[in-house]
Amino acid sequence: MKILVSNDDGIDSAGIYALVNSLKEIADVTVVAPHKEQSAVGHAITMQTPLRVFEYHRDGKFFGYAIDGTPADCVKIGIRNIMNEYPDLMVSGINHGSNTAVNIIYSGTVSAAREAAIMDVPSMAVSVTSHTVNDFSFAAKVAKYLSLEIKKRGIPNGTMLNVNVPNLPEEQIAGIRITKQGKSKWDDVYEKRVDPYGRNYYWLTGNLVELDNSLEFDQIAIKNKYVSVTPIHFDLTDYDMYEKMKEWDVERLIESKK
Amino acid sequence: MKILVSNDDGIDSAGIYALVNSLKEIADVTVVAPHKEQSAVGHAITMQTPLRVFEYHRDGKFFGYAIDGTPADCVKIGIRNIMNEYPDLMVSGINHGSNTAVNIIYSGTVSAAREAAIMDVPSMAVSVTSHTVNDFSFAAKVAKYLSLEIKKRGIPNGTMLNVNVPNLPEEQIAGIRITKQGKSKWDDVYEKRVDPYGRNYYWLTGNLVELDNSLEFDQIAIKNKYVSVTPIHFDLTDYDMYEKMKEWDVERLIESKK
Repeated sequence: MKILVSNDDGIDSAGIYALVNSLKEIADVTVVAPHKEQSAVGHAITMQTPLRVFEYHRDGKFFGYAIDGTPADCVKIGIRNIMNEYPDLMVSGINHGSNTAVNIIYSGTVSAAREAAIMDVPSMAVSVTSHTVNDFSFAAKVAKYLSLEIKKRGIPNGTMLNVNVPNLPEEQIAGIRITKQGKSKWDDVYEKRVDPYGRNYYWLTGNLVELDNSLEFDQIAIKNKYVSVTPIHFDLTDYDMYEKMKEWDVERLIESKK
Repeated sequence: MKILVSNDDGIDSAGIYALVNSLKEIADVTVVAPHKEQSAVGHAITMQTPLRVFEYHRDGKFFGYAIDGTPADCVKIGIRNIMNEYPDLMVSGINHGSNTAVNIIYSGTVSAAREAAIMDVPSMAVSVTSHTVNDFSFAAKVAKYLSLEIKKRGIPNGTMLNVNVPNLPEEQIAGIRITKQGKSKWDDVYEKRVDPYGRNYYWLTGNLVELDNSLEFDQIAIKNKYVSVTPIHFDLTDYDMYEKMKEWDVERLIESKK
């Protein structure tokens, strides 16, 4: 099995190191990851400027390719110009911090896996629910297990798995649940500050407001010590509204059709 | 009616100017847009650095607020700290170039409207299908008409309209169609070049491969001279796969559950 690994925390992060070491037990792993941290970049791609590819070493050995771009860039160039073939699987992570509910939209970790899904490569994003993680071993094990499951069972083109793992030792984990993207979202606050020259600047903070109350949803599952596995895709069509809008009779908005 | 306007081409673009002038006929308009072009930034938000707000003038008059951030940043700070109230509607655009099919994922224009949808503000992204547009008047008229329709009929929280307008005079427009996000996607090519110091760099190019063949889909509708209106949301859950994955029996992946 050939696996492409990327992330959004950067190629020097602890999470990607743990992930690569775990996946190497079952596959031939190629690492193509951002040179610098790229959190909350969403699904950005670099078009206005070119990309460069650097060889990156870790522990005195070649570890992978660092790209001066976004997570989605890494997957595109990783498959097109570095691997020069489609991998059997693409895994993104292990991210420091959960990617549940609306955070799926903002996440660079998820965008790397989504880019692979767009390219019809089976993929998975893996996050641990803490920004101060010391031990990625359980999450790395989950990534390995799910990689083997995906290989065995397959997933449809365009679908990826978004995996969140509680920051707990394995014996404290309540179980694994297949979940839906939750409705929890941020109550944003911009802190207004004044710079040394008397000018205002604004810094984004906020609290995640939990709007779900069932273990069916990602955010509630991880809060209750479950590993959350959410199948997501990139068809954003709102099919209910698609049907309903047929009643809008929009044709009459154009003069000649009145 | 209070409308917040943003875009991804930047506050100095021709498209936002035409949009604002058209919407001013029906609403009190506040403009909060990126200081510089932000195409293909996806749904990036700025967290690691603060944002600044600049007053921007056009034709010798105050036009709006320029932000040194992404389209999604503009909507967040526009609602939270500039308007200090929820607008009745948020409109993003008018973008130079279409935002159909997989481009919805990469688009900064769409991300601004999606951010409003996340905040339960009705919203719409408007694009014209050419990068060299001279006349935004028909697209601006469509934006005005649809704004009034949204006000009259309402759209569900979390849903937005993604509108693509062919770059044609109104009399050549075939009609307006409610559409689904198409499956067309990019065949990426990274052009390999050599810099003056002998180092390689890679520039993203590619062709959009049309994988749809029905007017039900955005990309085919605009190609056939229709205005395309796609209702989209940000629930990425793949519900078919959610049901199917219950058969995976993932619980057994955890030692203690075997």
